[in-house]
Amino acid sequence: MTRTFASDNNSGAHPMALIAITEANEGHVHAYGEDPWTARGIRALRSHVGDAADVFFVFNGTGANVTALSSLLRSGDCVIAPSTAHVATDECGAPERFTGCKVVGVPAADGKLRVADVEPLLSEHGNMHHVQPRVISISQVAETGTVYTPDEVRTLAELAHAHGMYLHMDGARLANAAVALDLPIRAFTTDAGVDVLSFGGTKNGLLFGEAVCFLTPGLADHFLYERKSGGQLASKMRFIGAQFAAVWGSSVWHECAAHANAMAARLARGAVAAGVELAWEPAANEVFALLSPEAIARLQAVSDFYDWEPRGDRTIARWVCSWDTTEEDVDRFVAAIPAAMEGCS
Amino acid sequence: MTRTFASDNNSGAHPMALIAITEANEGHVHAYGEDPWTARGIRALRSHVGDAADVFFVFNGTGANVTALSSLLRSGDCVIAPSTAHVATDECGAPERFTGCKVVGVPAADGKLRVADVEPLLSEHGNMHHVQPRVISISQVAETGTVYTPDEVRTLAELAHAHGMYLHMDGARLANAAVALDLPIRAFTTDAGVDVLSFGGTKNGLLFGEAVCFLTPGLADHFLYERKSGGQLASKMRFIGAQFAAVWGSSVWHECAAHANAMAARLARGAVAAGVELAWEPAANEVFALLSPEAIARLQAVSDFYDWEPRGDRTIARWVCSWDTTEEDVDRFVAAIPAAMEGCS
Amino acid sequence: MTRTFASDNNSGAHPMALIAITEANEGHVHAYGEDPWTARGIRALRSHVGDAADVFFVFNGTGANVTALSSLLRSGDCVIAPSTAHVATDECGAPERFTGCKVVGVPAADGKLRVADVEPLLSEHGNMHHVQPRVISISQVAETGTVYTPDEVRTLAELAHAHGMYLHMDGARLANAAVALDLPIRAFTTDAGVDVLSFGGTKNGLLFGEAVCFLTPGLADHFLYERKSGGQLASKMRFIGAQFAAVWGSSVWHECAAHANAMAARLARGAVAAGVELAWEPAANEVFALLSPEAIARLQAVSDFYDWEPRGDRTIARWVCSWDTTEEDVDRFVAAIPAAMEGCS
Amino acid sequence: MTRTFASDNNSGAHPMALIAITEANEGHVHAYGEDPWTARGIRALRSHVGDAADVFFVFNGTGANVTALSSLLRSGDCVIAPSTAHVATDECGAPERFTGCKVVGVPAADGKLRVADVEPLLSEHGNMHHVQPRVISISQVAETGTVYTPDEVRTLAELAHAHGMYLHMDGARLANAAVALDLPIRAFTTDAGVDVLSFGGTKNGLLFGEAVCFLTPGLADHFLYERKSGGQLASKMRFIGAQFAAVWGSSVWHECAAHANAMAARLARGAVAAGVELAWEPAANEVFALLSPEAIARLQAVSDFYDWEPRGDRTIARWVCSWDTTEEDVDRFVAAIPAAMEGCS
Repeated sequence: MTRTFASDNNSGAHPMALIAITEANEGHVHAYGEDPWTARGIRALRSHVGDAADVFFVFNGTGANVTALSSLLRSGDCVIAPSTAHVATDECGAPERFTGCKVVGVPAADGKLRVADVEPLLSEHGNMHHVQPRVISISQVAETGTVYTPDEVRTLAELAHAHGMYLHMDGARLANAAVALDLPIRAFTTDAGVDVLSFGGTKNGLLFGEAVCFLTPGLADHFLYERKSGGQLASKMRFIGAQFAAVWGSSVWHECAAHANAMAARLARGAVAAGVELAWEPAANEVFALLSPEAIARLQAVSDFYDWEPRGDRTIARWVCSWDTTEEDVDRFVAAIPAAMEGCS
Repeated sequence: MTRTFASDNNSGAHPMALIAITEANEGHVHAYGEDPWTARGIRALRSHVGDAADVFFVFNGTGANVTALSSLLRSGDCVIAPSTAHVATDECGAPERFTGCKVVGVPAADGKLRVADVEPLLSEHGNMHHVQPRVISISQVAETGTVYTPDEVRTLAELAHAHGMYLHMDGARLANAAVALDLPIRAFTTDAGVDVLSFGGTKNGLLFGEAVCFLTPGLADHFLYERKSGGQLASKMRFIGAQFAAVWGSSVWHECAAHANAMAARLARGAVAAGVELAWEPAANEVFALLSPEAIARLQAVSDFYDWEPRGDRTIARWVCSWDTTEEDVDRFVAAIPAAMEGCS
Repeated sequence: MTRTFASDNNSGAHPMALIAITEANEGHVHAYGEDPWTARGIRALRSHVGDAADVFFVFNGTGANVTALSSLLRSGDCVIAPSTAHVATDECGAPERFTGCKVVGVPAADGKLRVADVEPLLSEHGNMHHVQPRVISISQVAETGTVYTPDEVRTLAELAHAHGMYLHMDGARLANAAVALDLPIRAFTTDAGVDVLSFGGTKNGLLFGEAVCFLTPGLADHFLYERKSGGQLASKMRFIGAQFAAVWGSSVWHECAAHANAMAARLARGAVAAGVELAWEPAANEVFALLSPEAIARLQAVSDFYDWEPRGDRTIARWVCSWDTTEEDVDRFVAAIPAAMEGCS
Repeated sequence: MTRTFASDNNSGAHPMALIAITEANEGHVHAYGEDPWTARGIRALRSHVGDAADVFFVFNGTGANVTALSSLLRSGDCVIAPSTAHVATDECGAPERFTGCKVVGVPAADGKLRVADVEPLLSEHGNMHHVQPRVISISQVAETGTVYTPDEVRTLAELAHAHGMYLHMDGARLANAAVALDLPIRAFTTDAGVDVLSFGGTKNGLLFGEAVCFLTPGLADHFLYERKSGGQLASKMRFIGAQFAAVWGSSVWHECAAHANAMAARLARGAVAAGVELAWEPAANEVFALLSPEAIARLQAVSDFYDWEPRGDRTIARWVCSWDTTEEDVDRFVAAIPAAMEGCS
């Protein structure tokens, strides 16, 4: 069916993921992860985040985030995240449900948390009436399409560690961040002090499957039980492992993300040329544009996408490009902008 | 790799499941279930459990069970299940974690719960110091390989409903039960009074994917939030829906289960002919055999399988057949029995 | 020891509460609430909130709030409360822990939630990715010392009910509100549409003990189990019931609250006369004053109190009066203000 | 009202507890435990369990148990306890609710857990499908009225520690155990390897109030948040501290428990002399007697008590003596036995 700019979750799987699944579908292997395909998938991810990482496959992004966070939290602790973060707003309270802990959403103009946003909350440490900050959680790419530099990540990690806290990264769009930064993944994860990483697969060409990567040694010793009791243990895990091995053990992950980012850049350029004001500069595979509600309605008739949030009289529209978005998809959409904006502020 | 008798989770996916995934991998569709493949999958399951059923896809069996149970329970309630039930013993406490409620495991000789097992616990109703029985949970096929008749299910459902309780069925091997009973699925689910059903897919030829089916109207109105907050909402849900549509919308599900059951019967016959004593009569795709530890060790070298539990000097071995077990697999294993038993009690 | 303005939790028990406990301490009675003193306590509270109310005693305010909320929430739901609310900020995440649900704290300038604060959040209803607003929780007296009029409560109740939600009131300082409004308690609770009320005892002269009052019929049918599984069932409940019977079954509750409010008014008048700027008008037993940090430090040496929050160069100080605050306490403190402010902005 | 043998929870408070509360009711002190009375209460308990213990007051026994257990458990862990234990059966699932973990109840003939009961469960360590034994929880006095010797406790502690587990003791009737053993409390707690102790107050003469004592250093560092988020932080904590200081800082605790135990012994002797068969030897303040249902009904008309459980044609009756049970209470009850048993088997 027609490709849209609604979500990279709306795209299908890259052919290499399907081929990997087909190849892995041979005979019997041990269930629950004790199989060679899972081992290969783990090796592929370790090639990106370091051989010391403890890597566990789970089903989906929410599953990765909640089991990761739960393994770091105790009763009365809290997670500090930007208010736009998936863990703060888009998981129907799953983090609270799995951990029993509060997620404190901090307003962050561009979706990125900064030290100055976190510091005021640290005065709660030691006040037994208030939740205790234990984890800082950031999304890379952020939900606003912005990207943290390695230095920005490192600064947050240092802040966290200086206060007995952990830094968690929700990497649902990790590949797009690596391409945007033109850096290896470990440069802004392991090497920047991230303790636990939700390593995204689905949005970048897998059918399903994510990973929780413990980058700081010693944090994963109980995770097998965390994952199982969290409902995130796949019986036929080989089908997750095989996909990661195929896509992240080759250059496919990079090609997918690079293509998606390039399509977003093309879309942003075209939109600006057509007179659209961007809400902020796109950094990865998402474009946020300021449009009148009328223009948005007309453009949604051309290709589906979501409103992000109102901004005065206008609305911020979110356009997401995927690994399979084509130049034609973009150009057709851009070509429709002038008519859509006609007569609109 | 070599097929074994360890678990139907060790088998791969039926070719039709793979084909369905490949066909569904076309263009963009709405994520999270608003796509035509999910709709087809739901229709396929409704053809088995009735059009009034509310059907929701989830990732795995634990996910199906815990979200189903959670939607039925309130603080201080409990689930009554056989002590051998997956929800009681094999999910690392996931039901307690998701629901905050106790699972009361009742010893049941053949893995099947009976009215007489449940009734003594119902005297707790109204005693605020004790957990309140709210759900009876049975597995069909039971974890011991035994199968409930429709009447046995109905009797439990009537007991449950007479006491303001619900009957949940863990149908991880539902297809094998239907074949064993030679009945349509609805005969021992919807028509027998089951309120909520965990509809199993993975063990019968899917790559992944299960469903929660609310058979009693009015119970599902909050399940969308239950599923999402439970970490069980697949973004690319089309790949679950397409598999169910292909396998349960055709005769494939029945062929898979019928084959697995037939292989178990063949294995049981062969083993008995070779002098093996069965722990109890196999009804579906699992055989439980009494063997000395030495014989078990020798046979595990031929083909992997798990010990079930000790029984005096001997051990009950569990042999599971899958949709892809071949007659040769069975015959080769049976042929190895005499030598394995030689010199053993 | 010296009385201060730090908290009404720092005050002791009214003599009538002690006398009641002594009188109730006679022989054996059934534990866990089936005793005549508990029955009298329930009758006393029903005289304030209506005979149809279901009344349950618990230990403390957090216990009342979390069991009340938990009995109204399902997985994926949320509570909307002012960001200053005790349930949002001062219970170390207990509401999230007990309910697994998110508490959404909404900034509210004077600590009081208004319809316009809640309405934008109601658009989440039906979006399965976002928590579902199910309860509006307000504090009466609010944590800022302000008081809702019956009409303000009713408007929120109507909004809640129009959207399938409930209105919860945290009445830790309910008595002070009744005095401030010069209205019977039921005028701004039962009669104003409140569904569930945390009825405060400890801050108004009890040793310990609060109550959960279900004002809307039909909501309490599972609360016995909610309370017990929530750790809030007192074995020797007679000692809570007797205190409520003595204090709320007579005019003592009103005298205590009226006195505390009068002392706060005296303190506010004296402070203003001494040149202090109030942060906002006091309505009940708390005064919030804008002072320089130096002045605050000097005054805290006179009588202990807490900083509320910074406001520019100054800090808002919170002065709380109790049932046992004396005119001399107030006058001595007021007399110290000029010297404390000398040389301060 | 009439004293019965139903429960030591039915008794009132010892006069010394009331006097302590009255004395503590003077002026203002810091709420939430930073007051001199709480400090004295902690000192009193440390005199019994050692100065290294971390002592925290909570409201009730369930609160003590669940916060103690929660501070020791992680996702997927379990607690092993006798199936008669309060944490296993009498807290309406509160342990599961607070911890999300399973409580595995092990049948234990006399209510006391032994190494042989626990060892078979330890084979689950490392199996990610099964809950991980992390805490052994025993009650001293056991719910059956039996008492562990220091050696029995020590053996369980050594087993626990050898397997990376903790030993928790539910000491709701700790004082009665000390009297029964004629030993200081620390002989069978701190010195016997108990890691965390629920120190009971209410059943031995307090109005309300229990304590959680961490006897092993390093386990309590997060308990302030555990307690607050668990709803167990008393605002006017001085009234708990003062009671413990008065009763456990003097000989009152011992006199109360010694009296209750003596009354139980008198009752047991009298009953046996009247022809009653005891279910097992009473060790502390509870007597369990085998009687026909008719005899029980007749005796309950004399003085209330609870049935414990059926035993063939007969029922085990539980008679509990309290700190305030009198010799006359006992003798009057014993005198009624012959008539009650007349004509009964």
